[in-house]
Amino acid sequence: MGVVMGDVEANSDSKLREEIVAGNGLLNRRTLLRGALLSAGIAAAGTAIVDAQENVGADAPEWMKTPGRPFSAYGTPSKWQEKVQRIFTLGPGRAGTGVSRTPLHLMEGTITPGGLHFERHHNGVPDIDPSRHELFIHGMVKRPLAFSLDAMMRYPMETRIYFVECAGNSGAYGAPQPAQITAGELNGLISCSEWTGVRLSTLLAEAGVNKEAKWVIAEGGDAAAMSRSIPLQKCMDDAMVALYQNGEAIRPEQGFPMRLLLPGFEGNMNVKWLRRLNVIDEPVDARDETSHYTELMPGGKARQFMFAMSAKSAILKPSFGMNMKGAGLYEISGLAWSGAGRISKVEISADAGKTWALAALTAPVLPKALTRFRLPWQWDGRPSTLMSRATDEVGGTQPTRASWVAEYAPGQGYHNNGIQSWGVGADGTVKNVYA
Amino acid sequence: MGVVMGDVEANSDSKLREEIVAGNGLLNRRTLLRGALLSAGIAAAGTAIVDAQENVGADAPEWMKTPGRPFSAYGTPSKWQEKVQRIFTLGPGRAGTGVSRTPLHLMEGTITPGGLHFERHHNGVPDIDPSRHELFIHGMVKRPLAFSLDAMMRYPMETRIYFVECAGNSGAYGAPQPAQITAGELNGLISCSEWTGVRLSTLLAEAGVNKEAKWVIAEGGDAAAMSRSIPLQKCMDDAMVALYQNGEAIRPEQGFPMRLLLPGFEGNMNVKWLRRLNVIDEPVDARDETSHYTELMPGGKARQFMFAMSAKSAILKPSFGMNMKGAGLYEISGLAWSGAGRISKVEISADAGKTWALAALTAPVLPKALTRFRLPWQWDGRPSTLMSRATDEVGGTQPTRASWVAEYAPGQGYHNNGIQSWGVGADGTVKNVYA
Repeated sequence: MGVVMGDVEANSDSKLREEIVAGNGLLNRRTLLRGALLSAGIAAAGTAIVDAQENVGADAPEWMKTPGRPFSAYGTPSKWQEKVQRIFTLGPGRAGTGVSRTPLHLMEGTITPGGLHFERHHNGVPDIDPSRHELFIHGMVKRPLAFSLDAMMRYPMETRIYFVECAGNSGAYGAPQPAQITAGELNGLISCSEWTGVRLSTLLAEAGVNKEAKWVIAEGGDAAAMSRSIPLQKCMDDAMVALYQNGEAIRPEQGFPMRLLLPGFEGNMNVKWLRRLNVIDEPVDARDETSHYTELMPGGKARQFMFAMSAKSAILKPSFGMNMKGAGLYEISGLAWSGAGRISKVEISADAGKTWALAALTAPVLPKALTRFRLPWQWDGRPSTLMSRATDEVGGTQPTRASWVAEYAPGQGYHNNGIQSWGVGADGTVKNVYA
Repeated sequence: MGVVMGDVEANSDSKLREEIVAGNGLLNRRTLLRGALLSAGIAAAGTAIVDAQENVGADAPEWMKTPGRPFSAYGTPSKWQEKVQRIFTLGPGRAGTGVSRTPLHLMEGTITPGGLHFERHHNGVPDIDPSRHELFIHGMVKRPLAFSLDAMMRYPMETRIYFVECAGNSGAYGAPQPAQITAGELNGLISCSEWTGVRLSTLLAEAGVNKEAKWVIAEGGDAAAMSRSIPLQKCMDDAMVALYQNGEAIRPEQGFPMRLLLPGFEGNMNVKWLRRLNVIDEPVDARDETSHYTELMPGGKARQFMFAMSAKSAILKPSFGMNMKGAGLYEISGLAWSGAGRISKVEISADAGKTWALAALTAPVLPKALTRFRLPWQWDGRPSTLMSRATDEVGGTQPTRASWVAEYAPGQGYHNNGIQSWGVGADGTVKNVYA
């Protein structure tokens, strides 16, 4: 599902020409709402039934002739969807450190189901007994506290939708030659969930933070004791100790029974299996913020503490591995996001960046959450280069790939938000290109 | 998780008294944001660490001492959550007709994960081969059309969050005596998902609807061929043929590979495994709208075609089966919804309806979607009766249970949106009561 696009009949009457808003067939984002395509006779993907009497399903399929399967205690996806799974680049079953990616190119909408949320573990997924887990808040506080899960449940909660993106997402886009990999393989270290939990500021206020405190060291309860230094200001702003993900208890791979959620900050700082918060007056240069997650610059120095993920977008439909079936009408669709707030616009180009058209954004556009964008495209069947460019509410946007690459030392793979390009061939194949 | 509430120390200093907005300890919904509770020393659920040196987890648990388990292709909930599953009242494994319910009282937020979405099947879950499934649009149209899944994928899509509620949800609330069942057993025939699909108006425009047409008969591809008559106006308004649910292909129990989605209308009209849409000039009195889904009135006549679900709400925390642990601060939390649009307010009473306080609503409040409400409550430890009352943006609200029951013949179980009550005993037990 989701990978077939069609050979819609082209039609270039005057009504359609009025809808063109950028080069190479990009149409006004409101075209469908105005009914212009349909009244211009553009679509027609359905097959006409010549003899309706014979062809409206009088010959019922076998699954209508016997009772279906019974109810189930916890449902799973259709067996016909078994290929829609997390993407392992290092092979499944591997413990220790690594990643698995969300198959974005096989999905739609903005919410990631728990089963497909990307994974980034530094030493596997711990099996934590929730009745024995405690969160300790200590250090520069008036009274150190230990919170059991039962204790945590007693506090007022908040529910908000946020993405989590690994700092290394799209790292392959820095390679000298474009990798011929799917949009999920390239960009799938991002997922988006509805999180419910307790504001971290509530818990810190319980402990009573001393005036000299400026940082919080967060440590996970996994075998890597994953640790990061976090500015106290972020902890007092929109940070949350998340207990629920998409309505149910947070999944083991996302930190069961509790994780730190720092909306918009790079994934690894959202410490999973959260065990300790040490309130302190300076960062600690933890292993996980010196051996990893720094950005090597051309002069040989490294940037440290690049927290918020930048404005970014990816076209998912069409993308590598899909085949366009001849000239005609297509929907370009993808995801945009920013760690700085809401997406204010997404622009699409079908002519390698010469001209741009505004995509429609799916409401509600939420801060630090995935935003789905869509734009109708009348493809004329000739080779084309598609690009997307997101801009957020504080004016952040995406640099060209060339300017992004020029900023860092070769091989620096973190925080790559360069504008991505898909090349569509005359034969309908879609490839990664550097444009 | 989610069922333990605590014995928070009571404190009645002047600052707290200022926060009281309704009888029996209901506090201003913005209390926590103002920090009033914390500065009044009310909370303190965490356990003080007496000797911080010894008690911040220096003795690491065993799951920090060996690598965790490896990556997985499709994740599942924690093994410690095995009790969080759909609720069968007729026993699992039963094919044919029946229901399973969403365990709302064990959940948080507003999104229902696919695995816990309620089920209502009329003859089990068909195993449909998506490559052989077609949607037929025929009847009073200019050209009858057959849409394969591939064809459907070529149309522009929309993504929206909606609840689906069975017409029979909360039917037990009409019983002469209050059933001592959980909030999920009582109200769990409702779930909420992010749906993505093609607007039905787009597909109908493709077929070209004749001017005389006024209704559409929707038929499912299951062994019950579940059928309903739907006003054409609804089909042209916000109806969708849904293909994706929470980002992945729609689950088998919710209609894989496609279902009709009629936002706000009673669940059974949202025909699953959608196979045929017959455009017609009058309703057909299908089996599923005469043998079921009509409302028996006191005079012996029945109402037919009660489509939209009314404004409704349920307090989930606390609710039956939970134990309050002594006087102190609690969060009252639950869900509200309306098939007519957005929830405009939810009021809470802790004194059986004498006085009411406005609950805080979690943003974004979306039309025809579940809305989470929350309110802090300073319980004095005496017997109390909690109620919630939702009002929607068109002014629809909930009747008392007594006036709802008086409107129908005994045993009528559909569209019960009477105000619900939980009785809290001095011993902290929570029971269903009629108040």
